[in-house]
Amino acid sequence: MSKPSALPVMARFVIATSGRNMTKAAHVAVVCGVAMMVMLTVDPVFAALHYPIGAVLWACLAFFIFEWMIRLRHAFDAGHRWAYVFSFRGLVDAASALAIPIALLAGIDPKSAWLFGALWMLKVVPGIPGLRQLRRVLVLESRPLLSVLVIFLMVLFLASVAEFVLEHDVQPAGFGSVPAALWWAVATLTTTGYGDVVPITPLGRVIAAAVMICGLGVFGLWTGILATGFAAETRRDNFLRTWESVRKVPFFATLGPAAIADLTQMLRTIDLPARTTIIRKGQVGDCMYFIASGEVEVDLPGKKVALGEGAFFGEMALLGNNRRSANITTTRVSQLLVLDLVDFRLLMARHPDLAETIDAEAKRRSLENK
Amino acid sequence: MSKPSALPVMARFVIATSGRNMTKAAHVAVVCGVAMMVMLTVDPVFAALHYPIGAVLWACLAFFIFEWMIRLRHAFDAGHRWAYVFSFRGLVDAASALAIPIALLAGIDPKSAWLFGALWMLKVVPGIPGLRQLRRVLVLESRPLLSVLVIFLMVLFLASVAEFVLEHDVQPAGFGSVPAALWWAVATLTTTGYGDVVPITPLGRVIAAAVMICGLGVFGLWTGILATGFAAETRRDNFLRTWESVRKVPFFATLGPAAIADLTQMLRTIDLPARTTIIRKGQVGDCMYFIASGEVEVDLPGKKVALGEGAFFGEMALLGNNRRSANITTTRVSQLLVLDLVDFRLLMARHPDLAETIDAEAKRRSLENK
Amino acid sequence: MSKPSALPVMARFVIATSGRNMTKAAHVAVVCGVAMMVMLTVDPVFAALHYPIGAVLWACLAFFIFEWMIRLRHAFDAGHRWAYVFSFRGLVDAASALAIPIALLAGIDPKSAWLFGALWMLKVVPGIPGLRQLRRVLVLESRPLLSVLVIFLMVLFLASVAEFVLEHDVQPAGFGSVPAALWWAVATLTTTGYGDVVPITPLGRVIAAAVMICGLGVFGLWTGILATGFAAETRRDNFLRTWESVRKVPFFATLGPAAIADLTQMLRTIDLPARTTIIRKGQVGDCMYFIASGEVEVDLPGKKVALGEGAFFGEMALLGNNRRSANITTTRVSQLLVLDLVDFRLLMARHPDLAETIDAEAKRRSLENK
Amino acid sequence: MSKPSALPVMARFVIATSGRNMTKAAHVAVVCGVAMMVMLTVDPVFAALHYPIGAVLWACLAFFIFEWMIRLRHAFDAGHRWAYVFSFRGLVDAASALAIPIALLAGIDPKSAWLFGALWMLKVVPGIPGLRQLRRVLVLESRPLLSVLVIFLMVLFLASVAEFVLEHDVQPAGFGSVPAALWWAVATLTTTGYGDVVPITPLGRVIAAAVMICGLGVFGLWTGILATGFAAETRRDNFLRTWESVRKVPFFATLGPAAIADLTQMLRTIDLPARTTIIRKGQVGDCMYFIASGEVEVDLPGKKVALGEGAFFGEMALLGNNRRSANITTTRVSQLLVLDLVDFRLLMARHPDLAETIDAEAKRRSLENK
Repeated sequence: MSKPSALPVMARFVIATSGRNMTKAAHVAVVCGVAMMVMLTVDPVFAALHYPIGAVLWACLAFFIFEWMIRLRHAFDAGHRWAYVFSFRGLVDAASALAIPIALLAGIDPKSAWLFGALWMLKVVPGIPGLRQLRRVLVLESRPLLSVLVIFLMVLFLASVAEFVLEHDVQPAGFGSVPAALWWAVATLTTTGYGDVVPITPLGRVIAAAVMICGLGVFGLWTGILATGFAAETRRDNFLRTWESVRKVPFFATLGPAAIADLTQMLRTIDLPARTTIIRKGQVGDCMYFIASGEVEVDLPGKKVALGEGAFFGEMALLGNNRRSANITTTRVSQLLVLDLVDFRLLMARHPDLAETIDAEAKRRSLENK
Repeated sequence: MSKPSALPVMARFVIATSGRNMTKAAHVAVVCGVAMMVMLTVDPVFAALHYPIGAVLWACLAFFIFEWMIRLRHAFDAGHRWAYVFSFRGLVDAASALAIPIALLAGIDPKSAWLFGALWMLKVVPGIPGLRQLRRVLVLESRPLLSVLVIFLMVLFLASVAEFVLEHDVQPAGFGSVPAALWWAVATLTTTGYGDVVPITPLGRVIAAAVMICGLGVFGLWTGILATGFAAETRRDNFLRTWESVRKVPFFATLGPAAIADLTQMLRTIDLPARTTIIRKGQVGDCMYFIASGEVEVDLPGKKVALGEGAFFGEMALLGNNRRSANITTTRVSQLLVLDLVDFRLLMARHPDLAETIDAEAKRRSLENK
Repeated sequence: MSKPSALPVMARFVIATSGRNMTKAAHVAVVCGVAMMVMLTVDPVFAALHYPIGAVLWACLAFFIFEWMIRLRHAFDAGHRWAYVFSFRGLVDAASALAIPIALLAGIDPKSAWLFGALWMLKVVPGIPGLRQLRRVLVLESRPLLSVLVIFLMVLFLASVAEFVLEHDVQPAGFGSVPAALWWAVATLTTTGYGDVVPITPLGRVIAAAVMICGLGVFGLWTGILATGFAAETRRDNFLRTWESVRKVPFFATLGPAAIADLTQMLRTIDLPARTTIIRKGQVGDCMYFIASGEVEVDLPGKKVALGEGAFFGEMALLGNNRRSANITTTRVSQLLVLDLVDFRLLMARHPDLAETIDAEAKRRSLENK
Repeated sequence: MSKPSALPVMARFVIATSGRNMTKAAHVAVVCGVAMMVMLTVDPVFAALHYPIGAVLWACLAFFIFEWMIRLRHAFDAGHRWAYVFSFRGLVDAASALAIPIALLAGIDPKSAWLFGALWMLKVVPGIPGLRQLRRVLVLESRPLLSVLVIFLMVLFLASVAEFVLEHDVQPAGFGSVPAALWWAVATLTTTGYGDVVPITPLGRVIAAAVMICGLGVFGLWTGILATGFAAETRRDNFLRTWESVRKVPFFATLGPAAIADLTQMLRTIDLPARTTIIRKGQVGDCMYFIASGEVEVDLPGKKVALGEGAFFGEMALLGNNRRSANITTTRVSQLLVLDLVDFRLLMARHPDLAETIDAEAKRRSLENK
């Protein structure tokens, strides 16, 4: 009876320490588990390392079962049990934990059963950066993407039927049925071109050439649509991320809404861990920084100056002095807004008052430093 | 004599119920018919399911003949008979209905005759969404696309002649004539690369390498042109669709023409069926909605509020309150205009009066709800 | 002595009738000549049609010699002889005329000598539309394109050396030397993938996989650069073509320079031959037209109205009346400026005075037509 | 003891003459060395040219050792020794100088040892134009690029495991283990398609078809991201290069900051060596030039006029006079700013005062020339 009472304690401990650590451990387990699963299929390696591979696989499985149970418990405690169980994450966790045991119990050959370990890879999906952005592009551009897919499928089918008619007497092995011809068509239209099945009649080759050229066109349309969508999404994503940060910088508070909107489109947000060197003395600089949160330390000769939230630095580089004059490092986790030289100049042209403020502050600081 | 008198009745019935239903039935028939046609060519499947496959094919054919006759009758009644007969749709309908019977009567082997069923697929073409948009891109960009095609063809020919000269003594099978070399060239220039014919002389390989690199270039140009055209067309299409809807929202009527043009470029039109949940309580929101037509129901605690044409909702998400505070569902087929968070902020900067109106309405509503 | 005196007369006649006709004749000759040259290499066809093929080839050659002499004569008369002789066109004309006779005189086998007919294809180059535009893109983007090419070549070489080291003991046939490995590398990096030479050692395959992924990257960069350049060039080209036409429309003369620049970016120039129907009654319209040069005829009920240079038509479609109300055809070669519905609305927002003028004219015309 | 004292003298001499010359010599050595290294692996060539190849290779090696020692000495003298030693350049120089001697001393077969000459190629990397620009794109777009890479890897793994399950009984040679299946997957997903391993079960082929289509999608996303990033980077790069030059032209000094920012986005900087003809009399012109530094000579009938820094020329082409009226050549290394016809017209619309100044100067000059 120790387990039921022990689990909550462990769960609480794991969740307390967890978040990032739990995720990191899971990622390590996924990489180890999948690597072992791959080795399992390589006969000589498996023969030589039978036991270690098995041990790692069982350890990974145990970890994933344990992780799933903790998450389940946690979800039950927090009262949103079904939300978790039927979320993508919950389903993947369940499959990761249960697929292999069920397969083993069902009497499937162990070497085959462990192949379900490939499902573990799906645990990484929610952690992929920019996946949300990618999904938005696919959703927003779904109409044209679908059109291209339908065209792709029609070319595929019509070409297959045509090649079947032309080639099935000459090459019964490769073009003996429309599904067989479809295999040729998909390898050709995607320009993969295995070459295992190739038309040999003159007319069959003319049609194949047309299919290849259509392949280029489909490719081009696909790319064009995705490129268009991606450009828009990147701009949007950057604006949203930056907008939040801009509001934290008091320096910008005096600006009118038009200038703020302009500025937000120009700034780029970066997140830095503690003790990261942002600027190195003597480097050529082409941007200035605003501190949205955190703190940096300027390593001036003889003294160290700390700059906190809302301050800016690196502005000398934009005012004619190309070389950075001091090392600057973060003292804790910080979020900075980067203003590029090009954008600074465009901004200066459109909002001279902002430029003047930066200019004045830079002069004051440069006097102070002397 | 029953058929001539029965047909108009059926036709009237079909047309009355029709539109979407007729189209749906035709799509189902196309999918079934083409699937059976494919199975016909797979010998083991055909041997096992001789009769069911034949039955489905005859049923599909009967349907298409019937559909064509109804459409013909309808076109005659409406007085634009030739317009229909010689339109793309009319020709496809005629071919779908007549090709197989004519082939069977002409004494062609039934298994071959039924392959004309591939023509049925063309019935889907007019229903492909965004095809019109795609065609516009191809028409508007036809000049540069043609240039690239001509360059493609010249590289193809010159490379073929060169390889023929270099390789035809060494490989009479693969490069025995210029048309044979053209087959190699098209598979190489499109980067398909079957590998059934490959140059083996050193100089022949140098030329082949140049052809491959040209292939990348042609690809790049093609994609560049289509991407450029597609981006412009997508913007245009969205503007047109949205413009119509914007005029239906009285809220925007007070805006000046510049603001309306701005707004139209930012809004996105979506069409929703009845009983669709647009906003779910507790979700993170990043856009607001205007109702161009239809009606939605806000599920507030204790009461349900209906919002009709011209109303807006979801504005809280843009004014700092990230979580949606109520479920909102459509009560009938509705057309909504979506304003994204990013665009809302840009709009707010450029047209502060519009922002104030939304702000005021949001405050009033939030007070009312308390 | 008849030829020297006859030539100038013929030359004068040809040049007088010429321009387009000469070019058309040359294009026909190129297509015929190249087609015959291709057939020459197909043994069964050549055996069957020995004489006709030879006759057409000699006729084409005679035409090209004749054309070159006329052009030379014309260039001498006009005094820019060397400019023509050493221009691309002059060199191609000389090669087209002289390569085959010289080869035949030099005792080369006739079937091989006639292959120089491939050079005839180069005569088409100056006539390719948009080639100038393409060349500008390549010139302006030459720096990044070269960078990508250098990276491409470095990956190619390093991968070849690596595969040579790893594979030359196992596969002396395919990877026996670095040039042999280069052949594999170029087919892989361009994602052509013939499959005639394939690494088989595990490490060799890992490197090959890296090369393939680099191939995608090179492809992507190439396309990105060309797409960027092409978009800019297309905009520029359209602006230049349209600017000339806009100046011919008196209606725009009253506009300020800002509005004209705006308008020029929005309009699209089209050139139409005589007797072309531009608008068909009952069609859905989404653009209006300005006449830069030429004349159109409006087919109103009971009368025909001619509109000349500077007039506009089709504006009803932009003012709410979607269906075209009359057929409109060109009466002679005309150049029109097309204003799209979307652009019309944006223009209306930015330059309300222009919109009013169009509106007033449309109302006057619509009254007049009643 | 002569070497230590001789080296500084030589080093000083080399460094004095050096910069460009040293780099040029190194590039020649790289090309020669790598070419010889390639020939070394081609057995018949090596047998015939044993001694010359060896001599060139030793000469190149000697040059690289010498170059490295000079650079080391120079770095020691300048006091930033470690900065050089551990920079990319320093490491490549060290590897180029030491790898082959160490390999030879370690008793590796000389023919294999010389293959380390492939490292020499890396010496070219710092000289690739636009590499910095490319690196910036990769860094700025690293988030979405990584997402696509992760998706690519997941599709790769899942497809490999699926094909392993489906095919390893049928084709133990090609799909006998997951790593073997990975080899197939990477060749398919990149659309390379060697065709050495091809699925043959129906379900295996369906999955392969899905992988190919995913390959197109990955390709499209990759290209879209790189195209977006590249377009932004090109604009930025051009702005920065031009900004510096614009400040050198006194003519622009009177403009307000908004006009300067506009202008900088429109101008294009070109660097020309001495005695280069910029404009040829009689050519069709579509741009004007400003001299940022250097000098040009206008070849007017009867006299030669020199134009120095800050002057402009070619403006006639933009004011209606299409044909260039005089030859213009640089007299020394010059930097010019090019203003395209299209941009000139847009500029004229937005900043009429600038246009007037150019107009007035053009008229004055044209009077003077008469």
